[in-house]
Amino acid sequence: MTKPNLQIALDQNTLAEAARIAHLAGPVVDIVEVGTILELQAGQQSISVLRSMFPDKIIASDTKCADAGSTVAKNSKDAGADLMTVIDSATIPTMKSALSVLDGIQVELYSAWNWELAKEWKKIGIKQVIYHQSRDALLAGEVWGKKDLDIVRGFIDLGFKVSVTGGLNIDTIKLFEGVPVYTFIAGRAITGQSDPKAAAEAFQSEIKKYW
Amino acid sequence: MTKPNLQIALDQNTLAEAARIAHLAGPVVDIVEVGTILELQAGQQSISVLRSMFPDKIIASDTKCADAGSTVAKNSKDAGADLMTVIDSATIPTMKSALSVLDGIQVELYSAWNWELAKEWKKIGIKQVIYHQSRDALLAGEVWGKKDLDIVRGFIDLGFKVSVTGGLNIDTIKLFEGVPVYTFIAGRAITGQSDPKAAAEAFQSEIKKYW
Repeated sequence: MTKPNLQIALDQNTLAEAARIAHLAGPVVDIVEVGTILELQAGQQSISVLRSMFPDKIIASDTKCADAGSTVAKNSKDAGADLMTVIDSATIPTMKSALSVLDGIQVELYSAWNWELAKEWKKIGIKQVIYHQSRDALLAGEVWGKKDLDIVRGFIDLGFKVSVTGGLNIDTIKLFEGVPVYTFIAGRAITGQSDPKAAAEAFQSEIKKYW
Repeated sequence: MTKPNLQIALDQNTLAEAARIAHLAGPVVDIVEVGTILELQAGQQSISVLRSMFPDKIIASDTKCADAGSTVAKNSKDAGADLMTVIDSATIPTMKSALSVLDGIQVELYSAWNWELAKEWKKIGIKQVIYHQSRDALLAGEVWGKKDLDIVRGFIDLGFKVSVTGGLNIDTIKLFEGVPVYTFIAGRAITGQSDPKAAAEAFQSEIKKYW
Protein backbone atom coordinates (compact mmCIF):
# COMPACT_ATOMS: atom_id res chain seq x y z
CA MET A 1 0.00 0.00 0.00
CA THR A 2 1.40 3.42 -0.96
CA LYS A 3 2.56 5.52 1.97
CA PRO A 4 0.04 8.28 2.64
CA ASN A 5 1.35 11.82 2.23
CA LEU A 6 1.85 14.07 5.21
CA GLN A 7 0.40 17.54 4.71
CA ILE A 8 1.07 20.43 7.07
CA ALA A 9 -1.83 22.87 7.42
CA LEU A 10 -0.48 26.36 8.01
CA ASP A 11 -3.34 28.20 9.66
CA GLN A 12 -1.40 30.95 11.37
CA ASN A 13 -2.69 34.50 11.63
CA THR A 14 0.43 35.98 10.06
CA LEU A 15 2.60 35.02 7.12
CA ALA A 16 5.67 35.59 9.29
CA GLU A 17 4.61 32.91 11.76
CA ALA A 18 3.57 30.52 8.97
CA ALA A 19 6.91 31.01 7.22
CA ARG A 20 8.78 30.38 10.48
CA ILE A 21 7.03 27.04 10.94
CA ALA A 22 7.27 26.11 7.26
CA HIS A 23 10.99 26.85 7.28
CA LEU A 24 11.40 24.29 10.07
CA ALA A 25 8.87 21.56 9.25
CA GLY A 26 8.27 22.09 5.54
CA PRO A 27 11.26 20.06 4.34
CA VAL A 28 9.90 17.00 6.19
CA VAL A 29 6.35 16.99 4.82
CA ASP A 30 5.01 16.06 1.38
CA ILE A 31 2.38 18.76 0.95
CA VAL A 32 2.42 22.33 2.28
CA GLU A 33 -1.05 23.79 2.80
CA VAL A 34 -1.86 27.47 2.91
CA GLY A 35 -4.71 27.28 5.41
CA THR A 36 -7.94 29.25 5.10
CA ILE A 37 -7.15 31.43 8.10
CA LEU A 38 -3.71 32.30 6.75
CA GLU A 39 -5.04 33.03 3.28
CA LEU A 40 -7.80 35.29 4.60
CA GLN A 41 -5.21 37.10 6.73
CA ALA A 42 -2.23 37.39 4.41
CA GLY A 43 -3.84 36.99 1.00
CA GLN A 44 -2.49 35.47 -2.19
CA GLN A 45 1.06 36.35 -1.16
CA SER A 46 0.92 33.55 1.38
CA ILE A 47 0.64 31.04 -1.48
CA SER A 48 3.43 32.58 -3.55
CA VAL A 49 5.80 32.77 -0.57
CA LEU A 50 5.32 29.09 0.29
CA ARG A 51 5.58 28.13 -3.40
CA SER A 52 8.92 29.93 -3.57
CA MET A 53 10.17 28.31 -0.38
CA PHE A 54 9.28 24.81 -1.58
CA PRO A 55 9.56 24.65 -5.38
CA ASP A 56 9.49 20.85 -5.42
CA LYS A 57 6.64 20.18 -3.00
CA ILE A 58 2.92 20.05 -3.58
CA ILE A 59 1.28 23.33 -2.49
CA ALA A 60 -2.37 23.27 -1.42
CA SER A 61 -4.56 26.37 -1.28
CA ASP A 62 -7.35 25.83 1.24
CA THR A 63 -9.80 28.41 -0.11
CA LYS A 64 -12.89 26.28 0.65
CA CYS A 65 -14.22 27.93 -2.52
CA ALA A 66 -18.01 28.25 -2.61
CA ASP A 67 -18.52 30.36 -5.70
CA ALA A 68 -16.69 32.03 -8.58
CA GLY A 69 -14.80 28.78 -9.06
CA SER A 70 -12.66 29.73 -12.04
CA THR A 71 -11.58 33.08 -10.55
CA VAL A 72 -10.57 31.62 -7.22
CA ALA A 73 -8.84 28.68 -8.93
CA LYS A 74 -6.97 31.01 -11.30
CA ASN A 75 -5.78 33.14 -8.39
CA SER A 76 -4.59 30.06 -6.49
CA LYS A 77 -2.90 28.61 -9.58
CA ASP A 78 -1.27 31.90 -10.54
CA ALA A 79 0.30 32.04 -7.09
CA GLY A 80 1.66 28.52 -7.52
CA ALA A 81 -0.88 26.18 -5.93
CA ASP A 82 -1.24 22.62 -7.22
CA LEU A 83 -4.31 21.79 -5.16
CA MET A 84 -7.31 23.89 -4.12
CA THR A 85 -10.29 23.07 -1.93
CA VAL A 86 -13.95 23.70 -2.72
CA ILE A 87 -16.66 23.36 -0.11
CA ASP A 88 -19.15 20.51 -0.35
CA SER A 89 -22.12 22.87 -0.58
CA ALA A 90 -20.75 24.59 -3.68
CA THR A 91 -22.88 23.93 -6.74
CA ILE A 92 -21.82 21.57 -9.53
CA PRO A 93 -21.37 24.54 -11.93
CA THR A 94 -18.96 26.13 -9.40
CA MET A 95 -16.95 22.90 -9.14
CA LYS A 96 -16.85 22.53 -12.93
CA SER A 97 -15.75 26.13 -13.22
CA ALA A 98 -12.89 25.55 -10.76
CA LEU A 99 -11.88 22.30 -12.54
CA SER A 100 -11.69 24.16 -15.85
CA VAL A 101 -8.67 26.04 -14.45
CA LEU A 102 -7.04 23.63 -12.01
CA ASP A 103 -7.13 19.84 -12.16
CA GLY A 104 -6.27 19.43 -8.47
CA ILE A 105 -9.64 20.38 -7.02
CA GLN A 106 -10.45 18.75 -3.67
CA VAL A 107 -13.96 18.77 -2.20
CA GLU A 108 -13.88 19.39 1.53
CA LEU A 109 -16.65 17.47 3.25
CA TYR A 110 -18.67 19.32 5.86
CA SER A 111 -22.39 18.67 6.25
CA ALA A 112 -23.64 19.03 2.67
CA TRP A 113 -22.55 15.80 1.02
CA ASN A 114 -24.24 12.51 0.33
CA TRP A 115 -23.28 9.48 -1.75
CA GLU A 116 -25.37 10.49 -4.78
CA LEU A 117 -23.67 13.88 -4.84
CA ALA A 118 -20.27 12.21 -4.47
CA LYS A 119 -20.96 10.15 -7.59
CA GLU A 120 -21.86 13.35 -9.43
CA TRP A 121 -18.58 14.94 -8.33
CA LYS A 122 -16.73 11.91 -9.69
CA LYS A 123 -18.57 12.22 -12.98
CA ILE A 124 -17.56 15.85 -13.53
CA GLY A 125 -13.90 15.05 -12.88
CA ILE A 126 -13.31 15.60 -9.16
CA LYS A 127 -10.62 13.14 -8.09
CA GLN A 128 -10.02 14.08 -4.47
CA VAL A 129 -12.00 14.72 -1.31
CA ILE A 130 -11.02 15.76 2.19
CA TYR A 131 -12.79 14.05 5.04
CA HIS A 132 -12.92 16.43 7.84
CA GLN A 133 -13.52 16.47 11.55
CA SER A 134 -14.37 20.11 12.16
CA ARG A 135 -12.11 21.80 14.69
CA ASP A 136 -15.19 23.17 16.40
CA ALA A 137 -16.85 19.74 16.37
CA LEU A 138 -13.73 18.28 17.98
CA LEU A 139 -13.83 21.01 20.61
CA ALA A 140 -17.47 20.05 21.17
CA GLY A 141 -16.31 16.54 22.00
CA GLU A 142 -16.68 14.53 18.77
CA VAL A 143 -13.90 12.00 18.07
CA TRP A 144 -12.57 9.80 15.26
CA GLY A 145 -14.27 6.44 15.11
CA LYS A 146 -15.62 3.57 13.00
CA LYS A 147 -18.26 5.85 11.45
CA ASP A 148 -15.51 8.08 10.09
CA LEU A 149 -13.44 5.18 8.75
CA ASP A 150 -16.47 3.73 6.97
CA ILE A 151 -17.00 7.05 5.20
CA VAL A 152 -13.33 7.29 4.23
CA ARG A 153 -13.49 3.74 2.83
CA GLY A 154 -16.72 4.60 0.99
CA PHE A 155 -15.04 7.46 -0.86
CA ILE A 156 -11.98 5.33 -1.65
CA ASP A 157 -14.30 2.65 -3.05
CA LEU A 158 -15.83 5.29 -5.33
CA GLY A 159 -12.34 5.97 -6.68
CA PHE A 160 -11.47 9.17 -4.83
CA LYS A 161 -8.11 10.00 -3.30
CA VAL A 162 -9.07 10.76 0.29
CA SER A 163 -7.25 13.14 2.61
CA VAL A 164 -8.21 13.14 6.27
CA THR A 165 -7.96 16.01 8.69
CA GLY A 166 -9.19 17.37 11.98
CA GLY A 167 -7.49 16.87 15.31
CA LEU A 168 -5.07 14.24 13.98
CA ASN A 169 -2.11 13.40 16.18
CA ILE A 170 0.48 10.67 16.50
CA ASP A 171 -1.98 8.46 18.36
CA THR A 172 -4.78 8.68 15.81
CA ILE A 173 -2.71 7.61 12.76
CA LYS A 174 -2.89 3.93 13.67
CA LEU A 175 -6.69 4.03 13.63
CA PHE A 176 -6.44 4.17 9.82
CA GLU A 177 -4.27 1.04 9.51
CA GLY A 178 -5.25 -0.93 6.42
CA VAL A 179 -7.02 2.03 4.81
CA PRO A 180 -5.33 3.47 1.70
CA VAL A 181 -5.52 7.08 2.88
CA TYR A 182 -4.06 9.51 0.33
CA THR A 183 -2.93 12.18 2.78
CA PHE A 184 -2.92 12.90 6.49
CA ILE A 185 -3.33 16.60 7.13
CA ALA A 186 -1.94 17.79 10.45
CA GLY A 187 -2.21 21.30 11.83
CA ARG A 188 -1.56 22.11 15.45
CA ALA A 189 -0.08 18.66 16.14
CA ILE A 190 2.89 19.96 14.13
CA THR A 191 2.57 23.75 14.09
CA GLY A 192 1.73 24.01 17.79
CA GLN A 193 4.78 22.05 18.96
CA SER A 194 7.98 23.61 20.28
CA ASP A 195 9.89 21.59 17.68
CA PRO A 196 7.71 21.46 14.54
CA LYS A 197 10.38 19.60 12.56
CA ALA A 198 10.62 16.80 15.14
CA ALA A 199 6.80 16.65 15.26
CA ALA A 200 6.62 16.24 11.47
CA GLU A 201 9.33 13.57 11.58
CA ALA A 202 7.41 11.69 14.25
CA PHE A 203 4.32 11.74 12.01
CA GLN A 204 6.28 10.41 9.04
CA SER A 205 7.79 7.59 11.17
CA GLU A 206 4.38 6.67 12.52
CA ILE A 207 2.87 6.63 9.01
CA LYS A 208 5.71 4.42 7.76
CA LYS A 209 5.01 1.94 10.58
CA TYR A 210 1.60 1.11 9.13
CA TRP A 211 2.01 1.71 5.40
CA MET B 1 -41.91 48.88 4.86
CA THR B 2 -38.29 49.74 5.73
CA LYS B 3 -36.11 50.52 2.72
CA PRO B 4 -33.79 47.61 2.05
CA ASN B 5 -30.08 48.36 2.35
CA LEU B 6 -27.85 48.47 -0.68
CA GLN B 7 -24.62 46.52 -0.22
CA ILE B 8 -21.73 46.68 -2.65
CA ALA B 9 -19.75 43.45 -2.98
CA LEU B 10 -16.12 44.24 -3.68
CA ASP B 11 -14.76 41.11 -5.30
CA GLN B 12 -11.81 42.57 -7.10
CA ASN B 13 -8.50 40.76 -7.42
CA THR B 14 -6.52 43.65 -5.95
CA LEU B 15 -7.08 46.00 -3.05
CA ALA B 16 -6.10 48.90 -5.30
CA GLU B 17 -8.97 48.20 -7.68
CA ALA B 18 -11.42 47.60 -4.83
CA ALA B 19 -10.39 50.88 -3.17
CA ARG B 20 -10.82 52.74 -6.46
CA ILE B 21 -14.40 51.51 -6.81
CA ALA B 22 -15.19 51.97 -3.11
CA HIS B 23 -13.90 55.52 -3.25
CA LEU B 24 -16.43 56.27 -5.99
CA ALA B 25 -19.49 54.20 -5.07
CA GLY B 26 -18.97 53.61 -1.34
CA PRO B 27 -20.51 56.90 -0.18
CA VAL B 28 -23.77 55.95 -1.92
CA VAL B 29 -24.27 52.48 -0.46
CA ASP B 30 -25.32 51.37 3.02
CA ILE B 31 -23.02 48.37 3.46
CA VAL B 32 -19.53 47.86 2.07
CA GLU B 33 -18.62 44.20 1.59
CA VAL B 34 -15.10 42.84 1.43
CA GLY B 35 -15.78 39.99 -0.98
CA THR B 36 -14.31 36.51 -0.65
CA ILE B 37 -12.11 36.89 -3.71
CA LEU B 38 -10.70 40.20 -2.45
CA GLU B 39 -10.09 38.84 1.03
CA LEU B 40 -8.30 35.74 -0.28
CA GLN B 41 -6.18 37.98 -2.49
CA ALA B 42 -5.38 40.94 -0.25
CA GLY B 43 -5.94 39.49 3.19
CA GLN B 44 -7.16 41.11 6.38
CA GLN B 45 -5.77 44.46 5.26
CA SER B 46 -8.63 44.69 2.76
CA ILE B 47 -11.08 44.86 5.68
CA SER B 48 -9.11 47.43 7.65
CA VAL B 49 -8.62 49.69 4.61
CA LEU B 50 -12.35 49.75 3.84
CA ARG B 51 -13.17 50.21 7.54
CA SER B 52 -10.89 53.27 7.59
CA MET B 53 -12.39 54.67 4.40
CA PHE B 54 -15.95 54.33 5.70
CA PRO B 55 -15.97 54.73 9.50
CA ASP B 56 -19.74 55.23 9.62
CA LYS B 57 -20.89 52.45 7.28
CA ILE B 58 -21.56 48.81 7.96
CA ILE B 59 -18.60 46.68 6.85
CA ALA B 60 -19.23 43.06 5.87
CA SER B 61 -16.50 40.42 5.71
CA ASP B 62 -17.50 37.68 3.28
CA THR B 63 -15.30 34.91 4.64
CA LYS B 64 -17.88 32.16 4.01
CA CYS B 65 -16.37 30.68 7.16
CA ALA B 66 -16.63 26.88 7.33
CA ASP B 67 -14.53 26.13 10.40
CA ALA B 68 -12.55 27.75 13.20
CA GLY B 69 -15.46 30.11 13.69
CA SER B 70 -14.12 32.14 16.60
CA THR B 71 -10.68 32.67 15.01
CA VAL B 72 -12.06 33.81 11.68
CA ALA B 73 -14.66 36.00 13.42
CA LYS B 74 -12.03 37.56 15.68
CA ASN B 75 -9.80 38.35 12.70
CA SER B 76 -12.71 39.94 10.85
CA LYS B 77 -13.83 41.89 13.92
CA ASP B 78 -10.30 43.05 14.78
CA ALA B 79 -10.01 44.50 11.29
CA GLY B 80 -13.28 46.38 11.75
CA ALA B 81 -16.01 44.19 10.28
CA ASP B 82 -19.57 44.39 11.65
CA LEU B 83 -20.88 41.43 9.69
CA MET B 84 -19.29 38.14 8.67
CA THR B 85 -20.61 35.27 6.58
CA VAL B 86 -20.51 31.58 7.45
CA ILE B 87 -21.31 28.88 4.91
CA ASP B 88 -24.51 26.86 5.28
CA SER B 89 -22.60 23.58 5.51
CA ALA B 90 -20.62 24.74 8.56
CA THR B 91 -21.52 22.80 11.68
CA ILE B 92 -23.62 24.26 14.49
CA PRO B 93 -20.56 24.31 16.81
CA THR B 94 -18.70 26.40 14.20
CA MET B 95 -21.58 28.86 13.95
CA LYS B 96 -21.84 29.10 17.75
CA SER B 97 -18.11 29.65 17.94
CA ALA B 98 -18.32 32.52 15.43
CA LEU B 99 -21.33 34.03 17.25
CA SER B 100 -19.38 34.01 20.51
CA VAL B 101 -17.11 36.67 19.00
CA LEU B 102 -19.31 38.61 16.57
CA ASP B 103 -23.07 39.09 16.79
CA GLY B 104 -23.45 39.92 13.08
CA ILE B 105 -23.04 36.43 11.71
CA GLN B 106 -24.85 35.79 8.42
CA VAL B 107 -25.40 32.30 7.03
CA GLU B 108 -24.87 32.19 3.29
CA LEU B 109 -27.23 29.71 1.68
CA TYR B 110 -25.77 27.39 -0.93
CA SER B 111 -26.98 23.81 -1.21
CA ALA B 112 -26.71 22.58 2.39
CA TRP B 113 -29.69 24.18 4.09
CA ASN B 114 -33.19 23.00 4.91
CA TRP B 115 -35.98 24.46 7.03
CA GLU B 116 -35.22 22.30 10.07
CA LEU B 117 -31.63 23.49 10.02
CA ALA B 118 -32.78 27.09 9.61
CA LYS B 119 -34.82 26.78 12.79
CA GLU B 120 -31.75 25.44 14.57
CA TRP B 121 -29.71 28.43 13.37
CA LYS B 122 -32.40 30.72 14.74
CA LYS B 123 -32.29 28.94 18.07
CA ILE B 124 -28.53 29.41 18.51
CA GLY B 125 -28.81 33.13 17.79
CA ILE B 126 -28.25 33.56 14.04
CA LYS B 127 -30.33 36.57 12.96
CA GLN B 128 -29.39 36.95 9.30
CA VAL B 129 -29.14 34.81 6.17
CA ILE B 130 -28.04 35.54 2.64
CA TYR B 131 -30.07 33.99 -0.14
CA HIS B 132 -27.83 33.45 -2.99
CA GLN B 133 -27.94 32.77 -6.67
CA SER B 134 -24.48 31.39 -7.35
CA ARG B 135 -22.54 33.31 -9.98
CA ASP B 136 -21.68 30.02 -11.61
CA ALA B 137 -25.32 28.90 -11.47
CA LEU B 138 -26.33 32.15 -13.15
CA LEU B 139 -23.72 31.57 -15.83
CA ALA B 140 -25.23 28.12 -16.26
CA GLY B 141 -28.56 29.78 -17.05
CA GLU B 142 -30.50 29.80 -13.76
CA VAL B 143 -32.56 32.95 -13.07
CA TRP B 144 -34.47 34.65 -10.27
CA GLY B 145 -38.06 33.47 -10.01
CA LYS B 146 -41.03 32.59 -7.80
CA LYS B 147 -39.14 29.66 -6.25
CA ASP B 148 -36.50 32.09 -4.98
CA LEU B 149 -39.02 34.60 -3.64
CA ASP B 150 -40.86 31.86 -1.75
CA ILE B 151 -37.62 30.88 -0.04
CA VAL B 152 -36.81 34.49 0.82
CA ARG B 153 -40.32 34.89 2.31
CA GLY B 154 -39.91 31.63 4.21
CA PHE B 155 -36.78 32.88 5.95
CA ILE B 156 -38.40 36.24 6.72
CA ASP B 157 -41.36 34.39 8.22
CA LEU B 158 -38.93 32.53 10.48
CA GLY B 159 -37.71 35.91 11.73
CA PHE B 160 -34.45 36.25 9.80
CA LYS B 161 -33.16 39.41 8.17
CA VAL B 162 -32.64 38.27 4.59
CA SER B 163 -30.08 39.65 2.18
CA VAL B 164 -30.31 38.63 -1.46
CA THR B 165 -27.50 38.40 -3.96
CA GLY B 166 -26.41 36.89 -7.23
CA GLY B 167 -26.73 38.59 -10.59
CA LEU B 168 -28.93 41.41 -9.28
CA ASN B 169 -29.36 44.41 -11.53
CA ILE B 170 -31.68 47.38 -11.84
CA ASP B 171 -34.30 45.24 -13.60
CA THR B 172 -34.42 42.49 -10.99
CA ILE B 173 -35.10 44.77 -7.98
CA LYS B 174 -38.80 45.12 -8.81
CA LEU B 175 -39.27 41.34 -8.67
CA PHE B 176 -38.98 41.66 -4.89
CA GLU B 177 -41.74 44.28 -4.55
CA GLY B 178 -43.77 43.67 -1.39
CA VAL B 179 -41.07 41.50 0.18
CA PRO B 180 -39.32 43.02 3.23
CA VAL B 181 -35.81 42.27 1.97
CA TYR B 182 -33.14 43.41 4.45
CA THR B 183 -30.38 44.06 1.91
CA PHE B 184 -29.76 43.88 -1.81
CA ILE B 185 -26.17 42.91 -2.52
CA ALA B 186 -24.87 44.04 -5.89
CA GLY B 187 -21.48 43.22 -7.34
CA ARG B 188 -20.67 43.65 -11.00
CA ALA B 189 -23.86 45.61 -11.66
CA ILE B 190 -22.08 48.41 -9.76
CA THR B 191 -18.40 47.52 -9.79
CA GLY B 192 -18.34 46.56 -13.46
CA GLN B 193 -19.85 49.85 -14.68
CA SER B 194 -17.87 52.74 -16.10
CA ASP B 195 -19.51 55.01 -13.50
CA PRO B 196 -19.90 52.94 -10.31
CA LYS B 197 -21.28 55.91 -8.36
CA ALA B 198 -24.08 56.49 -10.89
CA ALA B 199 -24.82 52.77 -10.91
CA ALA B 200 -25.14 52.71 -7.11
CA GLU B 201 -27.38 55.80 -7.23
CA ALA B 202 -29.59 54.11 -9.81
CA PHE B 203 -29.95 51.11 -7.50
CA GLN B 204 -30.89 53.32 -4.55
CA SER B 205 -33.51 55.17 -6.64
CA GLU B 206 -34.96 51.92 -7.90
CA ILE B 207 -35.15 50.50 -4.36
CA LYS B 208 -36.88 53.68 -3.14
CA LYS B 209 -39.52 53.31 -5.88
CA TYR B 210 -40.81 50.10 -4.33
CA TRP B 211 -40.03 50.46 -0.62
